[in-house]
Amino acid sequence: MKAFQGELELIEQIRRAAESAGSNTGRKRAGVVLGIGDDCAILQPPRGHEVLVTTDFTLEGRHFRRDWHPAESVGHRALARGLSDLAAMGARPLAAFLSLALPKEMVATQTGRRWVQRFFTGLQTLAIEHGVPLAGGDTSESPSNLVLADIVLTGSAPARRALRRSGGRPGDCLYVTGTLGGAAAELDEMAERAAKVRSRAQRNPRTASETAEHPQLFPQPRLQVGLALLRRRFATAAIDLSDGLSTDLAHLCRESRVGAEISAAALPIHPLASRAGAARGLVLALNGGEDYELLFSAPPSVRMPRTIARVPITQVGKLMRGNQILIVDSSGNRQPLKPSGWEHFAR
Amino acid sequence: MKAFQGELELIEQIRRAAESAGSNTGRKRAGVVLGIGDDCAILQPPRGHEVLVTTDFTLEGRHFRRDWHPAESVGHRALARGLSDLAAMGARPLAAFLSLALPKEMVATQTGRRWVQRFFTGLQTLAIEHGVPLAGGDTSESPSNLVLADIVLTGSAPARRALRRSGGRPGDCLYVTGTLGGAAAELDEMAERAAKVRSRAQRNPRTASETAEHPQLFPQPRLQVGLALLRRRFATAAIDLSDGLSTDLAHLCRESRVGAEISAAALPIHPLASRAGAARGLVLALNGGEDYELLFSAPPSVRMPRTIARVPITQVGKLMRGNQILIVDSSGNRQPLKPSGWEHFAR
Repeated sequence: MKAFQGELELIEQIRRAAESAGSNTGRKRAGVVLGIGDDCAILQPPRGHEVLVTTDFTLEGRHFRRDWHPAESVGHRALARGLSDLAAMGARPLAAFLSLALPKEMVATQTGRRWVQRFFTGLQTLAIEHGVPLAGGDTSESPSNLVLADIVLTGSAPARRALRRSGGRPGDCLYVTGTLGGAAAELDEMAERAAKVRSRAQRNPRTASETAEHPQLFPQPRLQVGLALLRRRFATAAIDLSDGLSTDLAHLCRESRVGAEISAAALPIHPLASRAGAARGLVLALNGGEDYELLFSAPPSVRMPRTIARVPITQVGKLMRGNQILIVDSSGNRQPLKPSGWEHFAR
Repeated sequence: MKAFQGELELIEQIRRAAESAGSNTGRKRAGVVLGIGDDCAILQPPRGHEVLVTTDFTLEGRHFRRDWHPAESVGHRALARGLSDLAAMGARPLAAFLSLALPKEMVATQTGRRWVQRFFTGLQTLAIEHGVPLAGGDTSESPSNLVLADIVLTGSAPARRALRRSGGRPGDCLYVTGTLGGAAAELDEMAERAAKVRSRAQRNPRTASETAEHPQLFPQPRLQVGLALLRRRFATAAIDLSDGLSTDLAHLCRESRVGAEISAAALPIHPLASRAGAARGLVLALNGGEDYELLFSAPPSVRMPRTIARVPITQVGKLMRGNQILIVDSSGNRQPLKPSGWEHFAR
């Protein structure tokens, strides 16, 4: 499309971000034959590998709030969403593509440009960590006053080996990585703080080292776990927890044509979620979403390690015949678990 | 992300569109191993091929107006933009991915759903024509009252053979496909008509057979020409004319590190553009953009056919040493050709 004022500068910024991410990864960028600057990027997956593709919107007012999420978090989360999809299939990232539409005011003002710079810092920091070059995308002036992004992640996995949602079998054990409910709990805190101090709602930038403590602002995609699950042939099915356990488990069960039983007491609840009380913590863990942990099934014969790639692995239930999804409380009572992931900023 | 109300229905609509596009192509969908319904789609390019990726925004208010462009045109143009990028590199489409955010009102009302249905009809008609399966994407509620789309096209080309912008050499002849200025001329007409009859500005749906007469509403990506240029090893460099000849030629020259000379009299001007008068027609052809024709260079030794895949090929100039881009008028006067592609809906 036509160049808008400031677009060339923005493209240059993206190019620099791309080069920086590429040159600092310490890996050969064999995957990207041709990056930004032509009609298409050219990728060459490793021999015998298939190519995986996932796209995710990051729209202001839907997926983040500019007054709640620092710019670095917005950039980080945009990339993390796509990386998490690759992780869920056991894929290795090849390249990312960013389509970014910015309000005119943002490109024209110093404050606006600073925001964009910080957005790229957040995105790049995570890209460098996982060795993902930025190989292209699109830019536009936003038609509203909102920041609009769409991120595409490409990856590769050995042919016919990618972890799918559909391979689960009755009797398989169900596992999750890390802890649940933290992202939603932190968002609750952000909302409370914003309500109290409207004028100071804008958060300070975070450094990468702080990210583990900020499950909402800086979720960690579990790429190393996904790769290990594929390599060690542990998992029969896998999905990432973006919508919330209750919703994503329903996806996995539907694609695998099985039911499931989850133990409430077994769920590894994030400390931020526990702090909200046992009942609220459970709700956040089941329905909060945006934790970007992995949910996967494995045959009972697999002796699952307690950690994979230093990430705790917890059994939370098992797959069953039929199509019912039940949650068992500490007294042994079973009740249906309804898919209840929600849109945080739904109007 | 979380499902919004109506999202599941929308995803089902996309799935159906995908299946319909796939089943009607009459070709084996060997390229798509796994389509919509998992964390990622899985693609398998032909052996010895590289994978090409391009992403393009289609944002209401920037790239189209809902009161000027019929819904079928919006869907058609979204896909055409990406297909044209593949055409410019001589690639064959593998799969398309659509990220689509719709205003809440649109999903909730009959009129809105009808618009979405027609959008998909436009997209599908072109997808079927070129055998491109829709293999995934993302959906969201739009944070504004605007339709927001981002389309990703993947394709494949024999390794190291894709047509780049950078291969042009001084002395190469410059060619364009089809005619220029038609898309901008039709847009001018649409603007006039809208100004005259505000209440009847909404155009009727168009059928595929009518598309040749509507360079703005239904541009034709030149995939067959691109494939032939690659196969017959004619082109040293190529780019698609999305921004306008003046701007896109500058891109090609910069990447090839050459200058160029264009003959104004040689430009194949679309009848709609000619109708606006000789001077205006020339401006539309040089700067109008959105024609989605191809601009390519070839050594003077190549005996270029008059048509490729039934599309007229016209020599419009040649590449030169240096970095100057000049336009020669009918009296032989040379003047610099400034990149002047513009944003139609820029504020």
